Amino acid sequence: MSDRREFRDLAAIDDARATVADLDLDPGTERVPLADARGRVLAERVDAGLDVPGFDRASMDGYAVRARDTVGATQSDPVTLDYAGAVHAGDEPTVAVDPGTCVEISTGAVLPDGADAVVMVERTSERDQAVEVRSAVAPGQHVMVAGADIAAGERALGPGTRLTPREIGLLAALGVDAVPVRKQPAVGIVSTGDELVPPGDPLDSARGEIYDVNSATIAAGVAEAGGRPKRYPHAGDDYDELETQLRRAAEECDLVLSSGSTSASAVDVVYRVIEDLGDLRLHGVAVKPGKPMLVGTLGDAAYVGLPGYPVSALTIFRTFVAPLIRDAAGLPEPRTAAVDATLHGEERSEEGRTRFLPVGLVETGEQTLAYGVDKGSGATTSLVDADGVVEIDADTAYLAAGEPVSVQLFSPDVRTPGLLAVGEDDPAFARALDSVSNPRYLSRGSRPGVRKLRDGLPDVAVAAGPTVVDGSIDVDVTDNAVGGSTDALELASWTREWGLLVPAGNPDGIHDLGDLTGDVRFVNRGTDAGLRASFDAALDDFAADRGTTRGDLTDAIDGYAFTVNAYESPARAVNDGKRDVGLGLRASADALGLDFLPLGDEAVRVLANPERTDKPGVNALGDALDAFDFDTLPGYDR
Amino acid sequence: MSDRREFRDLAAIDDARATVADLDLDPGTERVPLADARGRVLAERVDAGLDVPGFDRASMDGYAVRARDTVGATQSDPVTLDYAGAVHAGDEPTVAVDPGTCVEISTGAVLPDGADAVVMVERTSERDQAVEVRSAVAPGQHVMVAGADIAAGERALGPGTRLTPREIGLLAALGVDAVPVRKQPAVGIVSTGDELVPPGDPLDSARGEIYDVNSATIAAGVAEAGGRPKRYPHAGDDYDELETQLRRAAEECDLVLSSGSTSASAVDVVYRVIEDLGDLRLHGVAVKPGKPMLVGTLGDAAYVGLPGYPVSALTIFRTFVAPLIRDAAGLPEPRTAAVDATLHGEERSEEGRTRFLPVGLVETGEQTLAYGVDKGSGATTSLVDADGVVEIDADTAYLAAGEPVSVQLFSPDVRTPGLLAVGEDDPAFARALDSVSNPRYLSRGSRPGVRKLRDGLPDVAVAAGPTVVDGSIDVDVTDNAVGGSTDALELASWTREWGLLVPAGNPDGIHDLGDLTGDVRFVNRGTDAGLRASFDAALDDFAADRGTTRGDLTDAIDGYAFTVNAYESPARAVNDGKRDVGLGLRASADALGLDFLPLGDEAVRVLANPERTDKPGVNALGDALDAFDFDTLPGYDR
Repeated sequence: MSDRREFRDLAAIDDARATVADLDLDPGTERVPLADARGRVLAERVDAGLDVPGFDRASMDGYAVRARDTVGATQSDPVTLDYAGAVHAGDEPTVAVDPGTCVEISTGAVLPDGADAVVMVERTSERDQAVEVRSAVAPGQHVMVAGADIAAGERALGPGTRLTPREIGLLAALGVDAVPVRKQPAVGIVSTGDELVPPGDPLDSARGEIYDVNSATIAAGVAEAGGRPKRYPHAGDDYDELETQLRRAAEECDLVLSSGSTSASAVDVVYRVIEDLGDLRLHGVAVKPGKPMLVGTLGDAAYVGLPGYPVSALTIFRTFVAPLIRDAAGLPEPRTAAVDATLHGEERSEEGRTRFLPVGLVETGEQTLAYGVDKGSGATTSLVDADGVVEIDADTAYLAAGEPVSVQLFSPDVRTPGLLAVGEDDPAFARALDSVSNPRYLSRGSRPGVRKLRDGLPDVAVAAGPTVVDGSIDVDVTDNAVGGSTDALELASWTREWGLLVPAGNPDGIHDLGDLTGDVRFVNRGTDAGLRASFDAALDDFAADRGTTRGDLTDAIDGYAFTVNAYESPARAVNDGKRDVGLGLRASADALGLDFLPLGDEAVRVLANPERTDKPGVNALGDALDAFDFDTLPGYDR
Repeated sequence: MSDRREFRDLAAIDDARATVADLDLDPGTERVPLADARGRVLAERVDAGLDVPGFDRASMDGYAVRARDTVGATQSDPVTLDYAGAVHAGDEPTVAVDPGTCVEISTGAVLPDGADAVVMVERTSERDQAVEVRSAVAPGQHVMVAGADIAAGERALGPGTRLTPREIGLLAALGVDAVPVRKQPAVGIVSTGDELVPPGDPLDSARGEIYDVNSATIAAGVAEAGGRPKRYPHAGDDYDELETQLRRAAEECDLVLSSGSTSASAVDVVYRVIEDLGDLRLHGVAVKPGKPMLVGTLGDAAYVGLPGYPVSALTIFRTFVAPLIRDAAGLPEPRTAAVDATLHGEERSEEGRTRFLPVGLVETGEQTLAYGVDKGSGATTSLVDADGVVEIDADTAYLAAGEPVSVQLFSPDVRTPGLLAVGEDDPAFARALDSVSNPRYLSRGSRPGVRKLRDGLPDVAVAAGPTVVDGSIDVDVTDNAVGGSTDALELASWTREWGLLVPAGNPDGIHDLGDLTGDVRFVNRGTDAGLRASFDAALDDFAADRGTTRGDLTDAIDGYAFTVNAYESPARAVNDGKRDVGLGLRASADALGLDFLPLGDEAVRVLANPERTDKPGVNALGDALDAFDFDTLPGYDR
């Protein structure tokens, strides 16, 4: 039984912020070609090294003149000047403007000697070797004198300036082809954990292997914050290897991040390296998710140990580490958009820890609703099912439904989804969404979908089979009516063929529902699924035919209580040989090459929130479903 | 006399937008490694190819149990289970949980056969080969079942999804190591104009050469909009070469941009290529700046011809071209921050053309003031002296001072400057600004500085010499008092030594002001400069001593009316041999190795807007000036 470390005396969020801010990250400066300078931050003041323009420059096409020669010229009483020649942009003038003469000049050309103004071509007429000028000009008119834009010696850009196309334009005008910029801090990323496998490699689920999420997420976050991510080979739980990687990263980087390093055994290695090379300044923070953060130094590098769970790791990264990287890179805090919203559903928190509650957003037309998204920190879908976080103070234990909250969007680029759908997981619906802009589809089953629609959260619910929800909405497939107190509108409906899926060749000889009670391992769907409701209804009928009850029947089915999460999951369990027969769709059987025993067709219905029928996303969904070709999915029919 | 093309029948802005939007830009798709996918846009729906997690997973450190074995367990009356072994993350369980037993389990490990829940370690005590469980658990507690995060077959991400660290995390969890994304549209950039020289190359100002600004600016703009810029060799005005580059770019790119291509002669070449390869759809747009835009096709590529002036080119690019590139790249319109501001000073526009007026912003504490920045489209400093634009409708000819305006910031990253200083150009002030965050310094001379301070625009004015401004502010160096009706606060002051600058060795033997009337070419500063006021005051004294007038004296000085733009400009003119003697600072003489004839010390004073003395930028400036080491500049004294 191993020694388990615990995180006691958690630091308050502000103390943790201060500890991280104290980490000294100075990546230094480097020169980069102007072509690569976009987004970088100037390390030094740049003064103009030359005048721009470097000469008195015509700012119009026309004629260079002596202004005094044009005095009194009008439309009706023009002045005539002798044509003395021409000068074009990029040419050195070969003629001067003597009194009574003019020189044709192009925009950008050098003003010839003698001239002090330009008459626009529109105010002139050419006549043999003479030019009629129909407008008087003042000295300097249509001329940009040397240095008028910026003069040599003037301050052009200061240190800390972020280089956008506009600053790059000014630098180009000054002839600068390389600029001193702050280096992007080098951020080493070391991931630990024997169970982690790099994406793309084969996965052994029996050993509990999962793909390494944090290395990719944190590397992308580092780049987004203006750092240069440097990924180190995955150390597994080979602690010598982990120690080697940490030491190497500390030598090569300005900041070292490890993830998963807060597990009991990995933390021992981290402690050992810290004791040897640096110091530990913080151990645990009163934040949820993210408690087991470590902060310290490793040699000259700063060090932050991130939790292993992706949502926790990214929360700690966004809250504490990204600001440190941005500051070192010289980048401003992003203008993180905050959205005022109304909390849909109550939220309870543990007191004493600041909580970052991930929330999704939905527009009702009158307000923005925020709903908690919390499948647990271990869930990666929490990353994308949320649009931002609500920071709940450590002293707040309860937020009531309907409370106003401020949602910090994950980035200013976040757009509230154009459509929120909750309900049955259905492949036709999932595909039709491809034609809808920025949709969100929470496939939690028909019952939760209809229940949440009744509560006023989603724009649409997807309901399959004879789903009946306790309370105010009935969705009854038999008469195609939506009962209860809500006037949910049916946006679209179709049918899908369902039944039992068995390996090709049906080795166990499954022919009807009665065969499920034999020596076969069945795999079912959960009670939230409309498919499950169709299955149970069929079992009722079958039991009645046999003069028995559904309960007696299901007691005899090995695996009736063995449920899986999505429409294709039973098919996959059968295909992988883990189970012998599963509940599912003909479409899944066809897709995986399984045999299919049809038991019926069930309706899938998309029900719109009656108050959001004008919402563009709802209309776009209606159009997408109208246009969807159901023939592309076996067993589907409109 | 060349044929000059004119742009008549200008398209209205909305028609031009529609014409550009009709250009068909479809760069197609490509697969990129997940590590390079940040910021890219998914080209296809990604469905989960596996269950996440792929097994029933412990979500806490503790003991895997059969939930029914824990029924009734409490703090005071624990249940004791036999310790049957351990399973760690990344291991395949080698033991099962039989009734009455438990297995030690780490977060992330595979739940052993027989177990259906996990008891948190905090609710247990170890005792020999047994474990006391002090809390009952329900089936499924602290277990994430296979596929609970996302199940195989479920829709993970839709086409059009922009990949941020969060989406990258989900893709990694699904084991995806390469993703189909929209290609970044290839945008060819061809610049024309004999006068353009690439930054870094030597410049021949006598020929009217200037550095090529647009290639750098537009390339950076293309990258910012999500395109892949491809720069073609500068074609000068070699029209065969220009034609070759346009044809090559049309073959290799999705979109071809040329800049400077709207000049009369270049446009002939563009027309020839368009006639041969494509069609011209628009020629001139009623927008200022930017009128001479061209829109058409070149073979399979779209084509936009941008004006040559950098501000015009970037305005046309931002208004019409960037949205086209973003759309092709699948990126959303940026959430361009708009700021409500009050117009400071009136603005007149030409009717019939939509005007994008570049404006700078300054915070007064109570409101945001917007002031027009318009040195002309030929000025590159207009690019960085402005924070955004006010779009003035084609029907609006006049905006009064004090009108509310909406300012479209150039990007959401734009931060209103922390300090706005207007006034004398002074190298000490310019350097001290390095310690102030995000300052803006318009070195337009002491007189405009004090005048604008009186008008309430800047936070501080920089005034040098005996500057007296008509109206309500007097700045009188002799008694160090600020008179008049404004209580401008002196934030800091110092003196700088000024005089005449001559080539090393003083070849013309200049010893006093009288020598300026000899056969030498003088170079002066403009009347807005405090330095000029000091000079004129010295001339007054000198003339009085000689019993003559300043006017008689200055009539005899060759170049008294020859003025240049910045404090170091006269020194440069002398150093370059263009003039024989100049007005300037000892600091400039030392910097350039010139001889210096001192004529006096003048005060430089930083005057704060009395209503903004609490502004953080003003205080930061005060601190920076207090800390500034004036000894680093020859002739300076605090």
